Amino acid sequence: MASEKPIVAVTCTAPVNIAVIKYWGKRDEELILPINSSLSVTLHQDQLKTTTTAAISKDFAEDRIWLNGQEEDVGQPRLQACLREIRRLARKRRSSGDEDPLPLSVSYKVHVASVNNFPTAAGLASSAAGYACLAYALARVYGVESDLSEVARRGSGSACRSLHGGFVEWQMGERADGKDSVARQVAPELHWPELRVLILVVSAEKKLMGSTVGMQTSVETSPLLRFRAKAVVPARMAEMTRCIKERDFQGFGQLTMKDSNQFHATCLDTFPPISYLSDTSRRIIHLVHCFNAHHGQTKARVAYTFDAGPNAVIFTLDNTVAEFVAAVRHSFPPKSNGDKFLKGLPVRPAPLSDELKAALGMDPTPGGVKYIIATQVGPGPQILDDPHAHLLGPDGLPKPAV
Amino acid sequence: MASEKPIVAVTCTAPVNIAVIKYWGKRDEELILPINSSLSVTLHQDQLKTTTTAAISKDFAEDRIWLNGQEEDVGQPRLQACLREIRRLARKRRSSGDEDPLPLSVSYKVHVASVNNFPTAAGLASSAAGYACLAYALARVYGVESDLSEVARRGSGSACRSLHGGFVEWQMGERADGKDSVARQVAPELHWPELRVLILVVSAEKKLMGSTVGMQTSVETSPLLRFRAKAVVPARMAEMTRCIKERDFQGFGQLTMKDSNQFHATCLDTFPPISYLSDTSRRIIHLVHCFNAHHGQTKARVAYTFDAGPNAVIFTLDNTVAEFVAAVRHSFPPKSNGDKFLKGLPVRPAPLSDELKAALGMDPTPGGVKYIIATQVGPGPQILDDPHAHLLGPDGLPKPAV
Repeated sequence: MASEKPIVAVTCTAPVNIAVIKYWGKRDEELILPINSSLSVTLHQDQLKTTTTAAISKDFAEDRIWLNGQEEDVGQPRLQACLREIRRLARKRRSSGDEDPLPLSVSYKVHVASVNNFPTAAGLASSAAGYACLAYALARVYGVESDLSEVARRGSGSACRSLHGGFVEWQMGERADGKDSVARQVAPELHWPELRVLILVVSAEKKLMGSTVGMQTSVETSPLLRFRAKAVVPARMAEMTRCIKERDFQGFGQLTMKDSNQFHATCLDTFPPISYLSDTSRRIIHLVHCFNAHHGQTKARVAYTFDAGPNAVIFTLDNTVAEFVAAVRHSFPPKSNGDKFLKGLPVRPAPLSDELKAALGMDPTPGGVKYIIATQVGPGPQILDDPHAHLLGPDGLPKPAV
Repeated sequence: MASEKPIVAVTCTAPVNIAVIKYWGKRDEELILPINSSLSVTLHQDQLKTTTTAAISKDFAEDRIWLNGQEEDVGQPRLQACLREIRRLARKRRSSGDEDPLPLSVSYKVHVASVNNFPTAAGLASSAAGYACLAYALARVYGVESDLSEVARRGSGSACRSLHGGFVEWQMGERADGKDSVARQVAPELHWPELRVLILVVSAEKKLMGSTVGMQTSVETSPLLRFRAKAVVPARMAEMTRCIKERDFQGFGQLTMKDSNQFHATCLDTFPPISYLSDTSRRIIHLVHCFNAHHGQTKARVAYTFDAGPNAVIFTLDNTVAEFVAAVRHSFPPKSNGDKFLKGLPVRPAPLSDELKAALGMDPTPGGVKYIIATQVGPGPQILDDPHAHLLGPDGLPKPAV
């Protein structure tokens, strides 16, 4: 029986998700309950993922965690909230008669090691993938099979959306205890195979305000944010769901851009104002609108969205990727890394017509975009069966390799 | 009698005004009726003014206009609307029995010459001063004495606020014919003598979208703008009026910044989005908040506002001008024009404490601010009695000097 082993370890991977209907603002700071529902696209783990190993043993003296090989303070509130919640669910399950008794004691301490396959420097929200992966690994090692939305949410709100593949909505819920604030899949990973995602990593030009503090200030000071949450988002959630189910890219793209713009508008309406978009971000926005106008698209052939940083996430269809990447390369000529400018999915070089060059109507900004990561919609968290994948050794400590 | 003279000329000057509660969006494009009331500060004409000469003569074959020495198309709709409106008022007055008959025929053609004492390149809204000056000069030359709000408004909405000195509100009105959409003085020029205004002229980094097209797109596409106009502005108008009457600078400054930010937020919520703020604008915003925080001001000791461009207009009190200018000079070191960096009212050099330098916490951006115009609250339109001031000669054509 598993309990004979000195140590039991589980290793999982989890994806990054990008919101197309944005989450900004909590109605409960402790339980991390949002003021509006949100909807996201799960990105493929071939390009962006977090890998986490959770191990428990009766020999462990205390809970410990290592992030990218560095031991971190396990006492931080959000991490503690996740551990409390998963153990509560584990006890609940054991106490319910219709299940076998847990193979391992819930009281065992846990060791956790987690790594990202992408540079944190890229400024890509890694906390969502990180906490989703943590919740998923903890659930497996403690034998929890119930919905993990709350466990992940307590770590980072948007993390609950990384618990599923494809297209995912986080229903804000109405209950004070947050039991109905859960993530649900709207459409599966393979629902829209033509959809492509390009991450334009921008040279950060200024230090950012953290999103936790930022959204709290916005809730307290922005009248526009309160209106958006109450009067604008509900209809947008319904419309975005329709666009996804019907694979209506024009509608999907336009609403994605509008919601990104409105999120950043509420940041600007915050006092003191918050600006996550840089001049390079604005040049990318301009580029996308020029590109769409050139192709006579009243709505969108390419769409952008920005989170709490200057990086752009671009949505388009496979038949447009090559030309748009060429347009980005033209508007933001790589400085030195021409060969490493494009990462991820292969994109064939495409010529850029003089008409399109002219339509982009702006002077090139060398180095404005550091590099592009080409990816697509992907699956939810995965379990790695190969024991060699474990980030923790038999002694429960990170392997030297990490 | 005047009508004996071959030509009768009147020369006036009118001020620029800066809105602290912003006007953005029309409910009637033809009559130029706003979707919300607005409130502005009239700037002193010693630093910024438009001078306009209007002359009528039975010998003039047609209406003509010269702007800064260049003849312009007199047929443009807004100019025609002003001329139609002033002549309508003139006929109305003549027809009213209780007045002497008009000294001159309303049917006479008019020649108009107008110049600004500030570079249009500075990107300072000159249309408000220009149309206010035109309305004022036309009224004098055609003998109209009624409220000129509608005449000026038909040229450029915010122009009606330049018809008065001091602090001016433009009441949106409710009537479909716009008769109650008028400008009124909230407090006179000398009401708040300590108030100072600094215009930070920023090197424009991108071409702007005109405000006429911009606000129309915003009305059509921004849900946040509609909410702002209906639910936010009315209370802000009342609060701003109170702050001005009570000379409450902290309240005045904070609300001025909040309303500027909200205006730009609605621009960002427009589709396609409109960005008038540049990275330099954002650095100025950051500088102001750091400056206020350093002085332990929960609200404001210095306040910014931005119109449809990257230039900042700063409000502060006389005892803070010198130190803030030193802070701007430190954060945006003049490139070559150190001597011409400061224009307008004299500002004594002031030392900058190391504490404040540290508090500003950002790397200097040489040349980000081209120059500063120091000014204050000023009077409304003026009539120049000196005939030498006329921009038009006895022949009704611009004097060579112009």
